[in-house]
Amino acid sequence: MIIVMKMNATSNEVDSVLARLESGGWKTHISRGEERTIIGVIGDERKLDQGTLSGMDGVDRVMPVLRPFKLASRDFQPEDSKIALNGHVIGDNKVIVIAGPCAVESMEQMMETAIAVKEAGAHLLRGGAFKPRTSPYSFQGMGEDGLKILAEVRQQTGLHVVTEVMSPDQVDLVAKYADVLQIGTRNMQNYALLNAVGQTRKPVLLKRGMMSTIEELLMSAEYIMSNGNHKVILCERGIRTFEKYTRNTLDINAVPVLKELTHLPVVVDPSHATGRWTLVKATSRAAVAAGADGLIIEVHPNPAEAVSDGEQSLKPKRFAELMVEVRRVAEAVGRSI
Amino acid sequence: MIIVMKMNATSNEVDSVLARLESGGWKTHISRGEERTIIGVIGDERKLDQGTLSGMDGVDRVMPVLRPFKLASRDFQPEDSKIALNGHVIGDNKVIVIAGPCAVESMEQMMETAIAVKEAGAHLLRGGAFKPRTSPYSFQGMGEDGLKILAEVRQQTGLHVVTEVMSPDQVDLVAKYADVLQIGTRNMQNYALLNAVGQTRKPVLLKRGMMSTIEELLMSAEYIMSNGNHKVILCERGIRTFEKYTRNTLDINAVPVLKELTHLPVVVDPSHATGRWTLVKATSRAAVAAGADGLIIEVHPNPAEAVSDGEQSLKPKRFAELMVEVRRVAEAVGRSI
Amino acid sequence: MIIVMKMNATSNEVDSVLARLESGGWKTHISRGEERTIIGVIGDERKLDQGTLSGMDGVDRVMPVLRPFKLASRDFQPEDSKIALNGHVIGDNKVIVIAGPCAVESMEQMMETAIAVKEAGAHLLRGGAFKPRTSPYSFQGMGEDGLKILAEVRQQTGLHVVTEVMSPDQVDLVAKYADVLQIGTRNMQNYALLNAVGQTRKPVLLKRGMMSTIEELLMSAEYIMSNGNHKVILCERGIRTFEKYTRNTLDINAVPVLKELTHLPVVVDPSHATGRWTLVKATSRAAVAAGADGLIIEVHPNPAEAVSDGEQSLKPKRFAELMVEVRRVAEAVGRSI
Amino acid sequence: MIIVMKMNATSNEVDSVLARLESGGWKTHISRGEERTIIGVIGDERKLDQGTLSGMDGVDRVMPVLRPFKLASRDFQPEDSKIALNGHVIGDNKVIVIAGPCAVESMEQMMETAIAVKEAGAHLLRGGAFKPRTSPYSFQGMGEDGLKILAEVRQQTGLHVVTEVMSPDQVDLVAKYADVLQIGTRNMQNYALLNAVGQTRKPVLLKRGMMSTIEELLMSAEYIMSNGNHKVILCERGIRTFEKYTRNTLDINAVPVLKELTHLPVVVDPSHATGRWTLVKATSRAAVAAGADGLIIEVHPNPAEAVSDGEQSLKPKRFAELMVEVRRVAEAVGRSI
Repeated sequence: MIIVMKMNATSNEVDSVLARLESGGWKTHISRGEERTIIGVIGDERKLDQGTLSGMDGVDRVMPVLRPFKLASRDFQPEDSKIALNGHVIGDNKVIVIAGPCAVESMEQMMETAIAVKEAGAHLLRGGAFKPRTSPYSFQGMGEDGLKILAEVRQQTGLHVVTEVMSPDQVDLVAKYADVLQIGTRNMQNYALLNAVGQTRKPVLLKRGMMSTIEELLMSAEYIMSNGNHKVILCERGIRTFEKYTRNTLDINAVPVLKELTHLPVVVDPSHATGRWTLVKATSRAAVAAGADGLIIEVHPNPAEAVSDGEQSLKPKRFAELMVEVRRVAEAVGRSI
Repeated sequence: MIIVMKMNATSNEVDSVLARLESGGWKTHISRGEERTIIGVIGDERKLDQGTLSGMDGVDRVMPVLRPFKLASRDFQPEDSKIALNGHVIGDNKVIVIAGPCAVESMEQMMETAIAVKEAGAHLLRGGAFKPRTSPYSFQGMGEDGLKILAEVRQQTGLHVVTEVMSPDQVDLVAKYADVLQIGTRNMQNYALLNAVGQTRKPVLLKRGMMSTIEELLMSAEYIMSNGNHKVILCERGIRTFEKYTRNTLDINAVPVLKELTHLPVVVDPSHATGRWTLVKATSRAAVAAGADGLIIEVHPNPAEAVSDGEQSLKPKRFAELMVEVRRVAEAVGRSI
Repeated sequence: MIIVMKMNATSNEVDSVLARLESGGWKTHISRGEERTIIGVIGDERKLDQGTLSGMDGVDRVMPVLRPFKLASRDFQPEDSKIALNGHVIGDNKVIVIAGPCAVESMEQMMETAIAVKEAGAHLLRGGAFKPRTSPYSFQGMGEDGLKILAEVRQQTGLHVVTEVMSPDQVDLVAKYADVLQIGTRNMQNYALLNAVGQTRKPVLLKRGMMSTIEELLMSAEYIMSNGNHKVILCERGIRTFEKYTRNTLDINAVPVLKELTHLPVVVDPSHATGRWTLVKATSRAAVAAGADGLIIEVHPNPAEAVSDGEQSLKPKRFAELMVEVRRVAEAVGRSI
Repeated sequence: MIIVMKMNATSNEVDSVLARLESGGWKTHISRGEERTIIGVIGDERKLDQGTLSGMDGVDRVMPVLRPFKLASRDFQPEDSKIALNGHVIGDNKVIVIAGPCAVESMEQMMETAIAVKEAGAHLLRGGAFKPRTSPYSFQGMGEDGLKILAEVRQQTGLHVVTEVMSPDQVDLVAKYADVLQIGTRNMQNYALLNAVGQTRKPVLLKRGMMSTIEELLMSAEYIMSNGNHKVILCERGIRTFEKYTRNTLDINAVPVLKELTHLPVVVDPSHATGRWTLVKATSRAAVAAGADGLIIEVHPNPAEAVSDGEQSLKPKRFAELMVEVRRVAEAVGRSI
């Protein structure tokens, strides 16, 4: 950690900072430049609260040197994490595709979708039984009945299921039916929930908060991992920007950035990242070309009748076309699908 | 709701949209302009899912006409909501000041702070027993022990306490000790938690998500209110922007905007909205000048020793100076403090 | 245009709005719902100032129905614009690659770069003679001497050149030497400059403002086109968001969005959109996979000695590797390079 | 400047960085921690290009220590700059109010406005003769005829005028008529224009770019000042965020931040920063409470007939009410108006 003092900082102020650090057992290194005094802190800065120093009199800025995550860091585990999912492996050469509707609406809807996406080559099925909705007046999901439908469809089609869990007290219930636990964008920093899924041994699909930094996403992964569950799949699903034409802005940079910073697999959700089904095919191709390990895509047999997110759902026929195109791109970058 | 068709929409596509609406019991009004066909939907659009229409073939855009919140809306309750807090009333002429440390650290720290802020004129005490921290390695709060300290300090000083609740299963515990339940910025869209505090009859201080629009803040208030608890205090605490000098950007516009849109009281948190104690005095004055009903300010007897957020905490002496200045501004806008 | 009145709007206020519109020659259509009155305006709303209406007493919101651009719109020209560039055509099947250093530094540097990028398959050469720099103390470019170098390198290598023009009074000078005039991100809304390049008949590479919407980008294209110059190449170069790890966020969604909204060719600049050379290869692949008509990439023979933007410049060898990979992706999406 | 090497950086890579620095005449200080090697650079880092270092192999990050502006910095000039404006002084105790319409439309409109705002207590008159408009089809301003009207109104009312200049070749013309040259938000980084107004000796009102950081605003001031013109007035006019209800988000934090970082006077434009006249009064009070040295406010005798920005323009009567309220706040913070 580097502490930059103000130009007019007094020697008393410098001494107070040094004393504060030394009382905590830190070694310091002081450098007096022409304009400013700079204090280097030697030791594991992750244990040092940046804020308490930066508020001290005479301090201009405190700059951390190390990244705050460890378990998720590629520095500490250079090789890619590979997570087994029903015979498939995410984080390996093959690009994994998760497809299905926004919400579980009925057995018929789920079966029809599952059969269609399986035939088109999808590896896992998605569908929400508990739905976080902006409005309390919107459909909130079928709850446990939806989970039962998912389990039944899995049994009939062999497709394992990814579904969202919204609060710590739902974790046991959802884990009973689901193969992968999804943490939604609004819950990326719901720490009680992160701790709860960290206590299970189910793979967790962790969606990036719509206004969270990449570092914060990795810190949320660190929460889960520090509870003992290392099976974390990161999901870039679009961030909130000033652009109004699309629902979110797909941060495609995040794919190679995450590949640099972490060993965890990275999935992209082009449906939420655009909010319009007409943009899903092009951005799915882009995600795979950028190096994503997987895609999660909304498919609904009849989007105009969907209870939610119809505008970003593909019809099965369009999803099948997408798979053909995405497969070609995957091969062009040396992967299969 | 207004549906704008694409320029080249076919009459079949227009008919499908009309059929979709009519099958749901909606009345429609069609207007064929030179460039585009526009369909008006007559009825309570809040029950209509915008997304399923906007994804239909031939549809260019769907524009809602009504605001999606009702209980929180000033249209439906023109007069200000007033919430009683230990003899004080928030939402009335008097500006209410809530002060205290980021986290409860010890009985001594809380007592010292409480006595100081009370003397300076604060009306309520804040302090976190459960702390949402970006890093799993940071101090997570004292938990129930912290709540007990808060209760003890209340008894000795008479200051009622505001403290955060982070998950539905904590609500009963926190409500046992606290006078006002705080929902933190990362939990503004934790719907399970909103429903849980909505089931209590304690006032709720609802912080705006750092990534949330004003409309979403009001929808989260609507969640709480639709559970029967109408005692919601809204808190603007800064939003995330591209500006890097400050931790967040205080959205001062939100104060008069909320006063237009809702009858609920509005509090500003200049400590989090700036992230630097040197900026708290000026922005506190601004918040009151803009019409805020209250302030929530971090005060710590020794910020350099604080376990968290030291850089944005005021020393008691500086807080007392702030109160003097803020009082003058309150009086200038026709209010007391 | 749709005008939504407030719930409590008086009939006098409604009448004032109607009178205001009718005095301007507009036809209106009024719809009185249960909650609100809505006024539809019939006619070419592009001639109507939205602001003057939305400020009127009793008006809640004004919602435009039409898009504000015409010449740039695909609605008015469905077929793609194709722009000839020295035997290549941008906007056609072939993906065009523009490569070169941030700034022209010397004849040697430009010749070495030009030979290398041509050999790797680039179609045009980039290099700035006039450099917009955040600091007045940074290198501001070689000016006309730099332009002369570019012209000389073109003659020797046959590569046509793209270079930036920063003010209206430079347009003639730059047009004398350059083949494509570049408008930089900070000048996207420099209307005097847009008008000036619109008066030439040189192709214009128009970079999106780092915090401009897609609609504003198209309005800036409209400025150039309304002056008679229809040879506009749009460039997505990253937008400013809260994410700090990368210099900008590449808005990959913008590629298919622009393909929907406009007939103009779309180029992506992964160097500026990421700000780190390690991310350029992955994002270049993504851009082509998303449907970009071209790429503009920074290449420098010795980035560590570059006078600017060294951190985002590729060495020639790495650029050649990138071309191999991007070519495979182009073929996978049915294009050549 | 601090250079943080990657964890796995080789000693060759460290040596290359050291050699690169030493060849440029910089002294270095190397610190080898448990996890990483850190290189400190000693000397005036403003002359060192950060980018060329951060792109070098083995480098993780480069962190500047000094702020990049000097002439604008309070470190180098602790006392406030005071700029004389027709007998008033901006940057002193008195809060200066600039008022007038968005655009000059006619002699009658300007005279009526000028008389009204003067009577209400405004100190300067604003009004645009050259108008930057998003659409080429919108009214672009009256040009020199508008400037002549401004000059005539000044003569009759004694109010000095602030008006925008949009390109370097207009500077002489505008300077002939205007008392203060305004640089608009879209031109904050139009460096040719900054240099041109820097060559004059007229005060410059420099509006923050809607997409610009506070540091970039100060760097643009530095451009003007490095040309010899130190009479720069900074203007916070709202930044672009994800919030859609208001046109921009007034960054009220920027007022005290600028007061810390620079000696230049700071003015706030609540009209553009909100985009709605109903919000202007509350945010004007807030700006003064936060410490602004002045306000610039849009006033139009008949906003519903304004050619532009009617929705954010106050009627003269409402402006007079605002002045009464703002005056009280100014007095509450120890200033006059």
